[in-house]
Amino acid sequence: MEDIHGANDRIADHIRHELTHRRVFAVNVMGAPGIGKTTVLTQTLRRLTALAPCVIEGDIESDIDTQTLRGLGVPAWQINTFGACHLDAPLVQNAVQNMDFEQIRSDRAGCLLFIENVGNLVCPAEFSIGEHAKLLICSVTEGSDKPYKYPLAFERADFIVLNKTDLLPYVDFDEEFFMKGLRALNRDAPLVRCSGKTGEGWGELAALLERFAEETFAAHGRPTHTGHE
Amino acid sequence: MEDIHGANDRIADHIRHELTHRRVFAVNVMGAPGIGKTTVLTQTLRRLTALAPCVIEGDIESDIDTQTLRGLGVPAWQINTFGACHLDAPLVQNAVQNMDFEQIRSDRAGCLLFIENVGNLVCPAEFSIGEHAKLLICSVTEGSDKPYKYPLAFERADFIVLNKTDLLPYVDFDEEFFMKGLRALNRDAPLVRCSGKTGEGWGELAALLERFAEETFAAHGRPTHTGHE
Repeated sequence: MEDIHGANDRIADHIRHELTHRRVFAVNVMGAPGIGKTTVLTQTLRRLTALAPCVIEGDIESDIDTQTLRGLGVPAWQINTFGACHLDAPLVQNAVQNMDFEQIRSDRAGCLLFIENVGNLVCPAEFSIGEHAKLLICSVTEGSDKPYKYPLAFERADFIVLNKTDLLPYVDFDEEFFMKGLRALNRDAPLVRCSGKTGEGWGELAALLERFAEETFAAHGRPTHTGHE
Repeated sequence: MEDIHGANDRIADHIRHELTHRRVFAVNVMGAPGIGKTTVLTQTLRRLTALAPCVIEGDIESDIDTQTLRGLGVPAWQINTFGACHLDAPLVQNAVQNMDFEQIRSDRAGCLLFIENVGNLVCPAEFSIGEHAKLLICSVTEGSDKPYKYPLAFERADFIVLNKTDLLPYVDFDEEFFMKGLRALNRDAPLVRCSGKTGEGWGELAALLERFAEETFAAHGRPTHTGHE
């Protein structure tokens, strides 16, 4: 396993360096099946103001979400893993090297590349795919014990969406218990409450991601750059 | 991978044979995180009439659900995988050989052993753990495209629960599209619509599982037994 992770991480570092250089900020979107990952993408990307959106869709099979995104006019690439339960860096590298980010970017300051991982709260957290940030999607319909049961995903997240808040009146979700578990693992990651039905949160999430991207690009441009990217 | 699966499957066959002999019917309960696997257990086991319930809880970490079940008076064992995203036959074998099924059974006709797998719609479907039947839990909150995206779990399921039907008025769930995808992969598995809020479906599910268990025990007892168990 050390060797598999070592080879994967070397390719991931290469992807990240190349993307930063091309002013592409990559977000690894993780979460359980049906938690709303594609909704997070469609809601957030149309609220971006500084960066141009594009998407890599990771699925075991099918290209339903890629077709949806292309129908919205968003440049989208499909990766099928054909059985594997997570994306890895080689799969992403194969997609990235065929993408024309300069054309996608057009007159904007850079690109925001969402990489939607396979729906799985476990394995994707273990594999870097060259992303600058990990965005973890949770939902009030999942129950409040998820940080306790799937700690790695919560520990490694840079941003967290608590999705489907419109359903709060109809489900038993103990937000205090959820936050206690989350903060024991991850003190700093911002949590944004969102709903595809009411529109809550998406503007805030878009602004957060664009600010983080800008800081990453700025750090890369500095001559005293110390390898943070 | 062939070797890993081969060794796993040999142990799984051994577990299944041993459990059948002891009149224990084992159900591998699979589904995404937060889909309601533990609710399915707590609702179904108290509606059993012929068999005595018991549970093995599989989690990456934590024993929240095991404590809940023990609080309800149900014999429950915890397996922690410490990172692994699915149960495998050796882990289950270690638990099973420490369980006193004769005591659990008491004056009932046998035991119904629920083995709750790690919350994951991908990897658990690949590994047999000695179960007699696979029970797949889905939910109307997940979206109707899940059979298309996670085909193996749907293909291999013996029984399917469509959970959280009380939330149907508040979510966009295209049941026709869901059923079309499901039946293209799996023509025969009964689907039971259930809700922890309204109580819909649990009696039907309990009766289905007990009938299937009875048939399995009966086949095992026949002298012309041909290995179906």
